[in-house]
Formats: sequence, structure tokens, C-alpha cells
Amino acid sequence: MSKLVNPHGGGELKPLMLEGAALTAEKEKAVDLPKVNVSSREAGDIIMMGIGGFTPLDGFMTHADWEGVCDGMKMAHGSHKDLFWPIPITLSTDTKTAEILKEGDEVALFDAARDEILATMIVTEKYLIDKAHECMQVYKTTDIEHPGVEMVMAQGDVNLAGPIKVLSLAEFPQEYGEQFMTPAQSRAQFEKRSWSTIAAFQTRNPMHRSHEYLAKIAIETLDGVLIHSLLGKLKPGDIPADVRSEAIETLIDNYFVDNTVMQAGYPLDMRYAGPREALLHALFRQNYGCSHLIVGRDHAGVGDYYGPFDAHHIFDEIPADALETQPIKIDWTFWCYRCDGMASMRTCPHDAEDRLLLSGTKLRKALSEGEEVAGNFSRPEVLAVLRKYYASLKDDEKTEVKLSGHSAR
Amino acid sequence: MSKLVNPHGGGELKPLMLEGAALTAEKEKAVDLPKVNVSSREAGDIIMMGIGGFTPLDGFMTHADWEGVCDGMKMAHGSHKDLFWPIPITLSTDTKTAEILKEGDEVALFDAARDEILATMIVTEKYLIDKAHECMQVYKTTDIEHPGVEMVMAQGDVNLAGPIKVLSLAEFPQEYGEQFMTPAQSRAQFEKRSWSTIAAFQTRNPMHRSHEYLAKIAIETLDGVLIHSLLGKLKPGDIPADVRSEAIETLIDNYFVDNTVMQAGYPLDMRYAGPREALLHALFRQNYGCSHLIVGRDHAGVGDYYGPFDAHHIFDEIPADALETQPIKIDWTFWCYRCDGMASMRTCPHDAEDRLLLSGTKLRKALSEGEEVAGNFSRPEVLAVLRKYYASLKDDEKTEVKLSGHSAR
Repeated sequence: MSKLVNPHGGGELKPLMLEGAALTAEKEKAVDLPKVNVSSREAGDIIMMGIGGFTPLDGFMTHADWEGVCDGMKMAHGSHKDLFWPIPITLSTDTKTAEILKEGDEVALFDAARDEILATMIVTEKYLIDKAHECMQVYKTTDIEHPGVEMVMAQGDVNLAGPIKVLSLAEFPQEYGEQFMTPAQSRAQFEKRSWSTIAAFQTRNPMHRSHEYLAKIAIETLDGVLIHSLLGKLKPGDIPADVRSEAIETLIDNYFVDNTVMQAGYPLDMRYAGPREALLHALFRQNYGCSHLIVGRDHAGVGDYYGPFDAHHIFDEIPADALETQPIKIDWTFWCYRCDGMASMRTCPHDAEDRLLLSGTKLRKALSEGEEVAGNFSRPEVLAVLRKYYASLKDDEKTEVKLSGHSAR
Repeated sequence: MSKLVNPHGGGELKPLMLEGAALTAEKEKAVDLPKVNVSSREAGDIIMMGIGGFTPLDGFMTHADWEGVCDGMKMAHGSHKDLFWPIPITLSTDTKTAEILKEGDEVALFDAARDEILATMIVTEKYLIDKAHECMQVYKTTDIEHPGVEMVMAQGDVNLAGPIKVLSLAEFPQEYGEQFMTPAQSRAQFEKRSWSTIAAFQTRNPMHRSHEYLAKIAIETLDGVLIHSLLGKLKPGDIPADVRSEAIETLIDNYFVDNTVMQAGYPLDMRYAGPREALLHALFRQNYGCSHLIVGRDHAGVGDYYGPFDAHHIFDEIPADALETQPIKIDWTFWCYRCDGMASMRTCPHDAEDRLLLSGTKLRKALSEGEEVAGNFSRPEVLAVLRKYYASLKDDEKTEVKLSGHSAR
């Protein structure tokens, strides 16, 4: 039987979360270490390293690695030299904190929002970066309106590099239960199901028929699909994770064949880096054991910063051996009345007016105001779950939901 | 840019059809050579070798090659030693003809049905085979009711091996025009269209929605689909090639995006060898430049001789480097009323009664008697072409059509 794709880098999964006595001891020690505050993005990266999602990273990147990743998408150092990596994974702090730290110091990485130490780190390097250079290389823009650029610009001026030991996965294991699956767990599930070809379907939202169609294209030719939801920070107006999960589960129960689909979530903030983030999405899906990633139109994009197919093309531009996990490139999908079925721009030759297209904003408005939504757009069972959620919102929350205007994925 | 798959064996295409002065000279010589009659199957094989569809074969197989192919799916001789080949390509004659031939003799391969010499051959070997052994190895049965077995059992008792020079492609170029595409021509077309990933869709019949769905699954992720129709001997009740071609062209015009699909035909009789023939279908599609072959349920099967997925499984049993062309394995496809769309057994979890399934026999009856056919089963534009054809038949032909009971593909 064929086997699963290898973890990135070709070795074993490398979860940096401590366990047992080592965890207890490190936690005790951490309390007395100097604290370095981490942002939401950095916290997500720590937890991903904790569960092995960023295998084979040992911690936050050095200046040479930062530069290698920005400029050539590869690591510069030691055992990871020349390893493909598309987006810098860095930790920043303010100048004042940096000044009192010296190389070799051990620090506690503290998440103020959660009031919790997530990890310890040995500082091996303090360095300054040209933030605008990172933004241009990774985000292709320095426009401060871009949410990823905004994060880079808002971060501290000094980067700290070093190996980390992860002490906590924050609220994820408890809040999301089985939904919060580590790469080792998803791999075990795939093996139990005798799957070896698996497409990850990335989502932040409930699945309508266009998303069901994307997943089913993959199921027609692969062993299964992992519907892999973002459990990191949501935007205002996004459906909460439990409602999303219920809506997806309902879809699976009613419209998918047993043992062709699994649902799970991962703990990471969106960077909205478009093509570079599509590569990161494929990379960590490889760690989860997925042989393929469904890459739609404007994957991980925001606004008009990227061409609709930039995230497709970038997979042709990286070295053939950069990733084992391969993209399944699919264009917009929709119901077409003349096709009398679901289709994409690749398979439907008809006109825009033959197609049922509904913006996320219009859908939210219809759901929160109890209007009809076409069954060709979304399954009735899914709509029922979403209607129940919108009905439970207070009026002022509905208003906020209606005002937030981000698109479906 | 990626390039097309290599011809089988990794070298250049090897069409055995002579041209120009060499052709004229060989034709003149052939008239005076002893004649060996060829069967319809053998004629198809000669023409396939003529156009390079059976690259890199030089002619009909020797005993050692026959044995290697029957027992281990590989050639035994010379420059083709260990070359993957799934079905023996052999020429037979009766004992009387064989007796007057000796090794080194040159013969004319004569197609009595067409009253034409198709090729010349230098006889390098005369040999007897255990026909039952060939049938068991290739067809998995010696049941004389099996049409492939019947052909083997009906062939002459002596096989003749040797390199051939092809003198004629029979009626194919003239009768089918551009439809009759050689591997060199399809490759040139693919390159002109900048396609490198192409799925061949094998058919003997017009395409209904289930077939359209199969092709579109491939188009969603590949550059294009080659709808590749059999132009060899049809069965009674089969739709004639020109009607089939018109029905398919109508479907393409109305329901496919420009530059995602091409139609062509190939000159070969069905052997109905199920899994082994699926491998041969993939092999010659590699010569045509197709990176994939859509392999449905019971591909190239007949009756109940093969399990519905034997033709899927066999691709997992051959060496990884046997073929570059890979299968796209798809189960039964159909319209499902609860899915409200096309689906397969892999993507529709509903019951048989939710699905629209129509046998070829029932469809022919409905078409020839002017009954309604559900639009979910076949496109109205396609049905109109077929209705016109059935209306043109005389009453006794309709009866024959209704009585012939072979299924859709």
C-alpha cells in the first residue's frame, strides 16, 4: 500500500510541545524568566510549532534564515540549510526589552491576551530587519491597509531568534476537542482509514455548494478530503467555530459518502500573503499528512493585492522537490442554470447571468433577515444551522455582522 | 513549461507506415509476395503500428515476446527487452499457409474484407501457442462466449512473427478525415494548445451527462481532455461513427469551455480484455501524448468476466515505471435527485432510487420510439442528434437496434 507524504524536510514530525516531567520542570522555571510578549500571530506560530505543524523548525528564525526565506524561500542555516520555507516565522520585541536581553539568555514567551506563558526560548540572536523589504518580498506590497503588512509594521523593531520549548497549546485542546487535531493525530486517522491520497480543503467559513463541489472534485479521484478549518483569530462577522463546525458536519452527514471526508481545525492566524501563504498552507498540510491542497481563486488573498491565479502559478515557480504536497488548482465554482449543475470557470462555458453567484455579504444579510436562499447555493440543512445561529444573535450583533464585508474564503 | 509524456519506451514515436518513394516501391513489390490473410483485429493492430500508436513495436511478436507478455506483461527480446506490454500483438495463419513459408520469407499481409494489402512482413519465426494459456492469462477465462477469447480461438493455429512495413491505413484517413488523428498529430495539437496534462476519455458511444461529468472532473484539474473514440469494428446496434461524432461535437459546442476538449478517433478493435486492455488503452494513449486515462467501472470489460474495479486495481500491480500515463479511476456516474447534481458512487451517499440510471437498451428504445428522455440523463442537443438518426432508420433496422443489448461503454 502507498504511504502518506513525508513530513516537510523528509524526517520525522517534530512537535516542540514538552510532555510529562520535562513540561512540569520547564513550566516552573519559566515563571522566573524575563518575559517577552507575543502577538496573536506569534502565538499561533508557537502553537503550530508545538504540535509539529511547522516541522522541522526548532524555533524562531535567525537573520540569515529570515533573509533566505524572504529572498529565496529557503533557510540559510545548519541542518535546515536550503530547506524550502515560504514565509518568515519570526518573533519580535520592542527595543527596550531587547536591550536588556543578551545572546544566550532564556526568556518566557508570554501571551498577554491569554495571560499565559506559551513557551520558553533561548535567545541566540537579536537582529533588526528591513520591514519594508519583508513586506515587499512576502506580501508584494508595503500598503499599510494590507492586514499582513499591518502586522509586520506593528511588530516590535527587534527580532529575537532561538529554539523554543512549547509549554502550552492555549485553549485549543480544551475548546475544540477532537476538532483540534495535531499532525500526528491526522496521520494516525488517515492510516486507520487506509487513506494515502488526501486533499486538504482550507476554510474559515461554513461550506456551501461551491465548497462542497471543490471537495467532491478531489474525492472523485483521491482517497479523501480533510476539511481543515482555521481556528485562529477570526474577523468580525465570521461565523464562530462551533457553528461553522456544526454546519460542516451537517453537510458531511447528508451529502458525503462515509469515509471520504474528515473535519479538523488548526491554530493559526491568516497572514493574507496570497501566493506565499498558499505555499505555507501546502507545507503545513504536508505535515498533517495531506498529499494535496485545494487552491482556489485568490487563495489566502485579500483585497486586490494578488492576481486571481498568483497562488496557482507560484507552485510552478518553486523547485520540483520543494514540497511533496501538490496543489489542486481550481477556479471559481458556482451553480450554473444552463449547465444544470455545479461547475467552474474551466467547465462552464455560459454567461455570468446563467450563474448563481452570491456574495458573503448578501448571504449574511439574507440569513440574518430570514430571507430565502436558493437551494442551488447552499444545502437546506446547512442553511438551517446558520439561520438558527443568526436568530440567536442580538440585534446589535446582527448589524455588525451585516456591516462586515469579507468574502467567503 | 512542462512537456508531454514520452512515447512508450521513452524514445521517439515509431510509425511503421512508409512514405513517398519507399511506399511506392514496397507496394509494387508486395503484389508479388505470398499473401497472408489478416483478421479484423490484426488489421487494426497493423494500422495502429502504422501510425505509431503501438510505439515502439516493430511488428508482430515472437514466441518469447508472446510468452513474456502473457506471463509477465513484458517483452523478452532485443531492444525491447523488459519493455512493459500488457496484451500480445500477434499475427496468425492457418497450418497450410504456414507450411509453405520459411523463416526469412517476405509476405504481404492481406485484408480480404478490404481487398487490400495493408503491410509487408519478413517472417522471422513461425510458432505454435497454447491458446488456452493466452486466454487465461490475458482474458482470465477460456469461455468461448467471451468475444476476445472467441477471436483467439478462431485465429489460425500458427503465429508468424516479424517486422512489418505498413503500406496503407485502409479507409481511415479518408473516411474519418481530421477525426482520424495519429499520435504525432495529437501531440502537435496539444503543443499548439499549450496543454501538457491531458486525460484521454475512451468511448464507443455518444456522450450523455454521466460521460460529460467524467470528462469535466478531469478538466477541473488538467489542461484538457481528449475524447478518443473507437473507429474500429462496431457491434450491431452501436451508433455509427459520424452520428456519434456529431452528437459529441454538439455537446462540446454547448457545454464545454473553448480549448478544454478535443475529439479524435483511433483504429482498433475492442478485445474486451478488461484490466489488461485498460493497460493497453493507457499505453497507446501515452503514445498519443495523454498524461492520463479516465478508467471507469468495468473498463473494457464484457459480461461478468471482471470485477467492476479490476481495471482500477491492475494499475497498482504493475511496476511504477511501466507507464507514464496514469489512470484517473472513477466509479459509476449518474444524476442524483437528492444531490441535485451529477455524482459518482464516491460522492453520492444516497440510495439507488434517488439516482437516475438508464440502460443503453432502454435509451435506444426511447430514442427510436420517440419517447421522452430526462434532461438529467442527456443534453437535449445531444438527444436531438440521436433522435434524427433513429428517425432515419428503416423499421427493420430499428428492431435490430432495439434487440442489441450492450451497455453504454
